[in-house]
Amino acid sequence: MTDFGTRLDHMRATAPLVHNITNFVAMNFMANVLLAAGASPAMVHAREEVAEFAGLAHALTVNIGTLDPAWAEAMNLAAQVMQSSGRPWVLDPVGVGATRFRQDVCGELMDRAPTVIRGNASEILALAGIAATGRGADAADSVAAAEDAARDLAQRTGAVVAVSGPEDFVTDGAQAYRVGNGHPLMPRVTVLGCSLNGVIAAFAVGAPALPATVAAMAYYGQAGEQAAARAHGPGSFQPAFLDALYTITGAELDAGAKVRAA
Amino acid sequence: MTDFGTRLDHMRATAPLVHNITNFVAMNFMANVLLAAGASPAMVHAREEVAEFAGLAHALTVNIGTLDPAWAEAMNLAAQVMQSSGRPWVLDPVGVGATRFRQDVCGELMDRAPTVIRGNASEILALAGIAATGRGADAADSVAAAEDAARDLAQRTGAVVAVSGPEDFVTDGAQAYRVGNGHPLMPRVTVLGCSLNGVIAAFAVGAPALPATVAAMAYYGQAGEQAAARAHGPGSFQPAFLDALYTITGAELDAGAKVRAA
Amino acid sequence: MTDFGTRLDHMRATAPLVHNITNFVAMNFMANVLLAAGASPAMVHAREEVAEFAGLAHALTVNIGTLDPAWAEAMNLAAQVMQSSGRPWVLDPVGVGATRFRQDVCGELMDRAPTVIRGNASEILALAGIAATGRGADAADSVAAAEDAARDLAQRTGAVVAVSGPEDFVTDGAQAYRVGNGHPLMPRVTVLGCSLNGVIAAFAVGAPALPATVAAMAYYGQAGEQAAARAHGPGSFQPAFLDALYTITGAELDAGAKVRAA
Repeated sequence: MTDFGTRLDHMRATAPLVHNITNFVAMNFMANVLLAAGASPAMVHAREEVAEFAGLAHALTVNIGTLDPAWAEAMNLAAQVMQSSGRPWVLDPVGVGATRFRQDVCGELMDRAPTVIRGNASEILALAGIAATGRGADAADSVAAAEDAARDLAQRTGAVVAVSGPEDFVTDGAQAYRVGNGHPLMPRVTVLGCSLNGVIAAFAVGAPALPATVAAMAYYGQAGEQAAARAHGPGSFQPAFLDALYTITGAELDAGAKVRAA
Repeated sequence: MTDFGTRLDHMRATAPLVHNITNFVAMNFMANVLLAAGASPAMVHAREEVAEFAGLAHALTVNIGTLDPAWAEAMNLAAQVMQSSGRPWVLDPVGVGATRFRQDVCGELMDRAPTVIRGNASEILALAGIAATGRGADAADSVAAAEDAARDLAQRTGAVVAVSGPEDFVTDGAQAYRVGNGHPLMPRVTVLGCSLNGVIAAFAVGAPALPATVAAMAYYGQAGEQAAARAHGPGSFQPAFLDALYTITGAELDAGAKVRAA
Repeated sequence: MTDFGTRLDHMRATAPLVHNITNFVAMNFMANVLLAAGASPAMVHAREEVAEFAGLAHALTVNIGTLDPAWAEAMNLAAQVMQSSGRPWVLDPVGVGATRFRQDVCGELMDRAPTVIRGNASEILALAGIAATGRGADAADSVAAAEDAARDLAQRTGAVVAVSGPEDFVTDGAQAYRVGNGHPLMPRVTVLGCSLNGVIAAFAVGAPALPATVAAMAYYGQAGEQAAARAHGPGSFQPAFLDALYTITGAELDAGAKVRAA
């Protein structure tokens, strides 16, 4: 894989409209991430309009962070629109191991054929039905421990499965890649993972899901590296990160991407 | 119009309490904008208390970004309090062109006599009943294309209508002004428009709506210019923008305002 | 009291999971505050899972800023779990003086034996049943005016009561302390008080509530002092504040704490 910069340039040229049904913690930062990257974000969730709006969007992200039944219904309605129209959508099963309610909702959402499933190791393990020790949005399990679960989940659902961690693991069940971009400050900033879903969705518009996901994660991690070089802690990291998403060029992305086949 | 600085100084001296029923994406940044500018923000929406709280506030803003029926009901209840007590309220019809639900809710809200309606060109065109090509919160239409719709909407509703864009257009249906302050980085930061509603509402307390709106938009755009001069992208723009809202003096505002009659 | 640094180091070493049922304005910044300080935040509110999740958490915070009946029910369910299991929880009665609905909800929550109640002077006065002149989240009353109310409230509820202000006042009804750390820019940034609740909760895990609250407030105020020294206004204050929460050491905290018996 070497065409990351082209994918970034294409995404920026088309500025896809990404519809996000995400948690309350993530909404503002995620919108800023998408705008800085060059996409067009929208947050819409009422059952009275969510399917109609999804019909206008190029891609969808669903994140169960601050879930409740009305939002779960909205997620299903919007995902159904994407499924039936063949447009990409990304599922982030935040804290799925923590409660029975999250497991039920994720079970239903997986029937809507997500294009990409992205989570930390504990979440991917929980989703694959393997006992995990997850708590909150932390990843108590290592990426390596979740690789078999990720391949299995990809084969079972047809989704590309991405495991976020110090080195990310991305697989479609057959091929797999590792993305080494990123920085240890990133888990000290909230909703960086949630916001990445939007960038993956934007890259996946009109593009095959596996290389789109890998390219989005390399770009995102590289922005994290640049931000960390300028930051004095997790506070100053945030503006520097958005600046980096905005300024990184396709050529820079190609030069700095740390991607290898797994 | 030349008394912008006086209006800013007066707003800061009185620190009006602005009640906001706004979208989840905007809430935090909008509260910080109002605090930095010198006003006092509050976010309250439950039908059990929204009218009681509106009765304590000096002004109200309503933004339909992340709408649902319960929030629409709260917006109506609070707007009714403002209407019957003659206090100012600002309507932001986010993405009104996108779904039937938004059109219905905005139709009801316009019966509550908003003091100011502020949106991008696509939203103002949609609100005026003219077919627009809007999607999400973007403005696909130009400000120039929405000027007739803005005048018409102002005459029909009695509101001051403000069209945000590279050069803003503000009219009460008879007079009209253009505000040239601002910077191209501003549309790359989320909820800057939503947050402006609060500043307009704060300026409109005890003041005529047309000059209050023009002054608020000149002040806001000038803060954007100062922030852009210090920023490396849309991330570092945000703290610099809040700093500028906090530090701009009345005299600076008068010196830098780019306002002309239309 | 002199063991503040030890308390900070212990909190970081254990990284407690803090469950927050807080307002929409605070969620993102509060999560970032907890991550920067070294704790692990989670936001969960649906009645379908809130008690189950509270059972996994080390501490809870409840903040009624953007209240509605469903959220009030969630607060009660989660607080009940903490009460019955003897784990700490912090109540922030935002704007309790403003509406009858808030007074009713706070009345119920006080029956769940909060470990710490933290608010501004107007809120503590209102909660103690003494007429206050509060509006929104501002403190129109002085800290001194609320000291008797705070002692009374502490004795009546068994909670440690903390009054935030230029100099904070913290009491368990018998002993009392004043914390002088902080900076005048802090009230110009939204949700700094709300976010402090999470830090107090994290410090109170496995520790007596009075010294834990005092230590958390000294640490928080010291971060505010460091941030203000680097900031140009309330915008640049925010990243600098998160950086300071991340970098302050136990030894620095001990050296800079401005705590005295009242």
